[in-house]
Amino acid sequence: MGYRPNQLAVSLIKKHTNTVGLIISDIRNLFFSTLAKAIEDECHIYGQNLILCNTNDEHKRDLDYIKVLSDRGVDSIVYCMSQDSSIDDVLESCELMNHLFLPFVLVDRYIKNKNYYVVRTDHVYGGYLATNHLIQNGRRRIACVTGPMHLQDAIDRVEGYKRALLEAGNEIDNELIFPGNYMVESGKEAVKVLKNKKIDAIFASNDMMAFGVYNQAKKEHLHIPDDIALVGYDDIFLSEILETPLTTIHQPIREMGKAAVQHLLKIEQNSEPNQEELILKPKLVVRESSGARKKN
Amino acid sequence: MGYRPNQLAVSLIKKHTNTVGLIISDIRNLFFSTLAKAIEDECHIYGQNLILCNTNDEHKRDLDYIKVLSDRGVDSIVYCMSQDSSIDDVLESCELMNHLFLPFVLVDRYIKNKNYYVVRTDHVYGGYLATNHLIQNGRRRIACVTGPMHLQDAIDRVEGYKRALLEAGNEIDNELIFPGNYMVESGKEAVKVLKNKKIDAIFASNDMMAFGVYNQAKKEHLHIPDDIALVGYDDIFLSEILETPLTTIHQPIREMGKAAVQHLLKIEQNSEPNQEELILKPKLVVRESSGARKKN
Repeated sequence: MGYRPNQLAVSLIKKHTNTVGLIISDIRNLFFSTLAKAIEDECHIYGQNLILCNTNDEHKRDLDYIKVLSDRGVDSIVYCMSQDSSIDDVLESCELMNHLFLPFVLVDRYIKNKNYYVVRTDHVYGGYLATNHLIQNGRRRIACVTGPMHLQDAIDRVEGYKRALLEAGNEIDNELIFPGNYMVESGKEAVKVLKNKKIDAIFASNDMMAFGVYNQAKKEHLHIPDDIALVGYDDIFLSEILETPLTTIHQPIREMGKAAVQHLLKIEQNSEPNQEELILKPKLVVRESSGARKKN
Repeated sequence: MGYRPNQLAVSLIKKHTNTVGLIISDIRNLFFSTLAKAIEDECHIYGQNLILCNTNDEHKRDLDYIKVLSDRGVDSIVYCMSQDSSIDDVLESCELMNHLFLPFVLVDRYIKNKNYYVVRTDHVYGGYLATNHLIQNGRRRIACVTGPMHLQDAIDRVEGYKRALLEAGNEIDNELIFPGNYMVESGKEAVKVLKNKKIDAIFASNDMMAFGVYNQAKKEHLHIPDDIALVGYDDIFLSEILETPLTTIHQPIREMGKAAVQHLLKIEQNSEPNQEELILKPKLVVRESSGARKKN
């Protein structure tokens, strides 16, 4: 095991530590833990180490952990903002990383019209795909359980939902849009409220909330998909193995992790930040919960 | 945002960085992500920051990340060894941490008869509780899906299973013991093999494998609990919201996180390592999958 030079001292002289920091909002959400694993795998390929901080979706901890990662000498940061972040909060985080000379990339969650490099999924298209699938299968009263509506990715999914309805000549009924928060519990709450509104389908803006919908639907003796067709969003690995496997929107998590890490390595190599977005296309995965015949 | 002293330089002079490192084996296993969150929450109470490394269950990465955490100047390490670790591998990791003057605590996974501080659950008792519950509910041919049998926590669960059977006057039938690996897939494989052995119950050594059992049982048109009663182990939060909620052994995850962090802080304060084990008792949580009436 021999002699190891003090790397803290080495870091003062040599710039790179070959360590990437990841700030993640909720490690118990399988979407984020899968994303973290994808980023770790990609780092590993390039001999980079990943250290990870979980913020429990509190913006204050985003700021704390940016400082911690800077103090621990990471080369760069993959940043997935916490759920309670306002646009000003996100700007505060980004300014802090700039101030600390830390290259960063926003992953998944993002803000509009700002020149930060972002790797994300086209959520308007995802929301459209989910809703259009339900329409094509004859559903008429399609509800939407949203994410936190101050987050752009939540707004985008609802926009896709509305676009699909309007394109099919349906009206938007705001009573059918339930404000959720991406947590299991709000999927349960949604069913309690929506069950009295004669709905025949639900588009849940993530799979975790779809799990809550299954659970509460069973308690209310509503059958999925016969009474309520259900489509989720994310395609986390448990969605496939449920008793009624979940039709959902597959996010290209592996590709997102790959692109985020490669972008940071590129910046480090030539110091030339690329201020564009990489927007990946999601796809529909048809399983049993939407009441359609299996197509794939 | 003002002036920030270079913390790498400060670390050279001042010993503490108020940063705890966590090495975790598989972040996509909800047991471990919940444990990570519990450790993070406890760190937060004491003004400690947690940085986390995911090893993907490869011992080589355990060693890499111990060095990375040392290089990044953490004060101490919560260590959850990777699944492929032999006893020699674990000793290698522990010696490396000692060599690097890093106080550490083993959490969940452990090795026998070594003087390292360990926080863990009494898995013999847990395996006993699970199996005894199935016996009490009239099941006769109870199979066991094990974890990786070079890990002490997997061995312990099987020992508890055998103890319950013997105590009830049943024989041990090795044909009913299926060697799994704690992953969903091996729960599926278990059903494919065990379905021809006239079993009426399965004790799965973790909830992730129990999820695999549900999935494959459905494909084989076996009803849970009517054809096969099922008990899992861990009590991760999705187990409760499944369509047939899972009877399982609840591990005191929050208490484990609390005890691990408090132990490390104690060491730092008085430099007096406490070389004892903290063994917490698990408890049975009865839900629908075991075919018993709900008792709690």
